[in-house]
Amino acid sequence: MPDFAEPLARLIQEFKRLPGIGQKSAQRLAFHVLRSSREDTGRFAQTLMDVKDHLGVCSLCNNISEGEFCPYCKDPNRDQSVICVIEEAHNILPIETTRTFEGLYHVLQGAISPLRGIGPERLKIHGLLERIAGGAVRELIIATNPNVEGEATAVYLSRLVKPLGVKVSRIAMGIPVGSDLEYADEVTMSKSLENRREM
Amino acid sequence: MPDFAEPLARLIQEFKRLPGIGQKSAQRLAFHVLRSSREDTGRFAQTLMDVKDHLGVCSLCNNISEGEFCPYCKDPNRDQSVICVIEEAHNILPIETTRTFEGLYHVLQGAISPLRGIGPERLKIHGLLERIAGGAVRELIIATNPNVEGEATAVYLSRLVKPLGVKVSRIAMGIPVGSDLEYADEVTMSKSLENRREM
Repeated sequence: MPDFAEPLARLIQEFKRLPGIGQKSAQRLAFHVLRSSREDTGRFAQTLMDVKDHLGVCSLCNNISEGEFCPYCKDPNRDQSVICVIEEAHNILPIETTRTFEGLYHVLQGAISPLRGIGPERLKIHGLLERIAGGAVRELIIATNPNVEGEATAVYLSRLVKPLGVKVSRIAMGIPVGSDLEYADEVTMSKSLENRREM
Repeated sequence: MPDFAEPLARLIQEFKRLPGIGQKSAQRLAFHVLRSSREDTGRFAQTLMDVKDHLGVCSLCNNISEGEFCPYCKDPNRDQSVICVIEEAHNILPIETTRTFEGLYHVLQGAISPLRGIGPERLKIHGLLERIAGGAVRELIIATNPNVEGEATAVYLSRLVKPLGVKVSRIAMGIPVGSDLEYADEVTMSKSLENRREM
């Protein structure tokens, strides 16, 4: 590798730590910073620290939050009787963009993964049970990821919560809308057949 | 769009300013920062500022430099009689990785572009002429980009420098090694034919 000036080499390393950024992208980003004004870079650096200094976790649902409660938990117009359970806070985004879900969320901060040594005790399940014990919750929509870990988590939660008299549902898996059967993998295709609906 | 907490929304905006980073990537990067330790993020922010505070431009060749001269201009083992002319400092990288060029560089900080109103007076050509006037330079390899602006710059420089008794050459354009004729565009293909070499 050619010699980069030392601070530039360090910045390339820092960019490479970010997900999805390889050597070439990291170089392009670092050179972009080099060409940017000191003011722009200062604002970028400050914003990075603001995120670390001013954001915490909602004490109800574990979503990202500026104060004690996140915007969804604070909003009296959201339906308090439905909780959508997700693995990570960023999973809220694709659900909110549908504009069809008006309930609350619960972030587990992970999924059960025996392979990686993550058992249910590592997830934020205790708080969820407390919310259900409050009595207002009628339905739990489990929107963990459609993979082995997400499925294991869904089955575990379902067994735990159903005896409490709460309806438990799982998001549908099947062929994506606008896609083509030709491109469907066999697991998705068989899920799609299994979950067929009468017309 | 769903409500992101305010500092997070700002960080997503900052990541979106970077080249090649769209909304989805910016979100993924911002959530990564959220999950990182405060220490890691602090080091990232500090490195951004170090690049702005400790890096300048080499007073000989305009390459990025920590001191007055860049590593290439400081290195007595580099061939002082050949200068490779490039548009931007990051163009040094692909040339150095070949390990076949041992001369010096000159960064023009751009290319002639009448469409964008960039004339030769905006480029770092004056310093190049001074270096040539020093008398040690025998050859100028023009490695500006193989597009309209890079070609215009190459032709301009060639006309300017040849009368000074310096050999001027241009990097070869043709079919990339390991590629297939099928994928060559017509301009590259015709360049490749035009620049054919006897075997």
